[in-house]
Amino acid sequence: MGPGIEAKESEVENAHKLGILIAQKGWITLTGGRNIGVMDAALKGAKEAQGLTIGILPSDDQTTFSNALDIPIITNMRSGRNYLNVLSSDIIIACGMNTGTASEVSLALQSEKSVILLNTNKEAGVFFTKLKKNLVYIAETPQNAIKIAEALLKNKK
Amino acid sequence: MGPGIEAKESEVENAHKLGILIAQKGWITLTGGRNIGVMDAALKGAKEAQGLTIGILPSDDQTTFSNALDIPIITNMRSGRNYLNVLSSDIIIACGMNTGTASEVSLALQSEKSVILLNTNKEAGVFFTKLKKNLVYIAETPQNAIKIAEALLKNKK
Amino acid sequence: MGPGIEAKESEVENAHKLGILIAQKGWITLTGGRNIGVMDAALKGAKEAQGLTIGILPSDDQTTFSNALDIPIITNMRSGRNYLNVLSSDIIIACGMNTGTASEVSLALQSEKSVILLNTNKEAGVFFTKLKKNLVYIAETPQNAIKIAEALLKNKK
Amino acid sequence: MGPGIEAKESEVENAHKLGILIAQKGWITLTGGRNIGVMDAALKGAKEAQGLTIGILPSDDQTTFSNALDIPIITNMRSGRNYLNVLSSDIIIACGMNTGTASEVSLALQSEKSVILLNTNKEAGVFFTKLKKNLVYIAETPQNAIKIAEALLKNKK
Repeated sequence: MGPGIEAKESEVENAHKLGILIAQKGWITLTGGRNIGVMDAALKGAKEAQGLTIGILPSDDQTTFSNALDIPIITNMRSGRNYLNVLSSDIIIACGMNTGTASEVSLALQSEKSVILLNTNKEAGVFFTKLKKNLVYIAETPQNAIKIAEALLKNKK
Repeated sequence: MGPGIEAKESEVENAHKLGILIAQKGWITLTGGRNIGVMDAALKGAKEAQGLTIGILPSDDQTTFSNALDIPIITNMRSGRNYLNVLSSDIIIACGMNTGTASEVSLALQSEKSVILLNTNKEAGVFFTKLKKNLVYIAETPQNAIKIAEALLKNKK
Repeated sequence: MGPGIEAKESEVENAHKLGILIAQKGWITLTGGRNIGVMDAALKGAKEAQGLTIGILPSDDQTTFSNALDIPIITNMRSGRNYLNVLSSDIIIACGMNTGTASEVSLALQSEKSVILLNTNKEAGVFFTKLKKNLVYIAETPQNAIKIAEALLKNKK
Repeated sequence: MGPGIEAKESEVENAHKLGILIAQKGWITLTGGRNIGVMDAALKGAKEAQGLTIGILPSDDQTTFSNALDIPIITNMRSGRNYLNVLSSDIIIACGMNTGTASEVSLALQSEKSVILLNTNKEAGVFFTKLKKNLVYIAETPQNAIKIAEALLKNKK
């Protein structure tokens, strides 16, 4: 999860790297599915590494769909679909931070899902850690985020 | 907007006071509609002052409805209804802070709605101000929150 | 509930009459809230008779809101809001029939709500009666629909 | 799409056959995802034929998930998810008919999606054909339904 149109270059690069790493682990990459920012970059990375990609889309406007999408789930719910994104994920990685991403992190923590923060500002780390200390992880690099995710998935089983 | 079952006594008291003040202004009080915490206290305050009350409810289970509700809007969307709460409000006052409230503040800021933080921790103020400086206000008391709301509504017209 | 842009003149007239009669009973009129067709006509009728009006709106585009709306509930869910319309109603009156109205009648019956069909084609009556015989009523006039609604509300108590 | 707990044996058998045939075509099978009735039978058929399966689930209660589900999309929207089912499908096959299925057929027609009716009563065929003649097809057998779907997909390209 992460910013769309206002994503920074470093966030897009990390999202792309995350998609590659997720696919290499054999996991499914799920994002908001649009053809911009972090959503698009993660899906493209996953496809480059032969991964399966899902997008939970805010609208049925096909001109907004990422080209790297295997399975488009269409909601016509605008930002209401943010809740579905986190419910349908085993682990949430937030790459960058804006209001939409903040809503997804909040809803994930409320649903007792683990959240890994990458490329987010310090204030986000402090705030979300205060909200749900035991579910928030800070990663320094995409590789580090995947390592944390892997450990979390092992503990789940 | 604010915590349900885990609301602190000071938050419940402030929510109750907010409901009274909102009703005295002739405004409508809209909350998540359940019979607990900040939602319930604000509705009760509003009814005591002859205000109109609306609740956007997560479930159709009537045993969870606040008694102080004039108009129950039923969604069966669980926390998906948080987005509807903020879309249907002119101004959001967050009284206390947990993961659900954080999702509502985030979604409100994304929808370009002004948010007044009351009784929230310092970290929340810092985080949300960083996200959308021009839409976040910090209030010290319910009276102060209502003054800010009044000024915002005047500017809107 | 009923057609929007494609509503026939007789449906709009009946919806307007229904709004007046609902308000005269002291009940609240709830529709899809847009400024077209059956939704708009019922709200206008209700306001003419000093009733309270609620609209559960598919979008936050204010140019689509009925002028006769007291309480706009905004969902940004497009037709996903049809389910909320019926969940939030005690009794559903369908005035006219198209695909949107058919979805509302179906969801109402699934939620064990009584549905009164007015101005619908014969095929609709036959189909929905077959689906849930004990919850479907056919009305010949707005007055007749209100009489049926009144009897149903009495039985509920 | 089709009945859950109240599905008839012939509907479950046809749904199972549909799942097999869909998978053999290389298409993806999408249902409501629960472990009962038509939803479950279609997914099981698809898995037996090595197809990919998706379920758009009403709740996060894992004890209600079909075992034959590759990709669970979780909504916590109860019947609100019916709209997402049809939006996310290229073609809808209704196998059996109850109020939930009727809502999906109605929402599909509203969204300009083609609907193939299998195992539905005569009244359903008459009603939905009257609503949107050009989008409703009646199939006699699962094989016939797949043939119709194939022709529709060809015309789309």
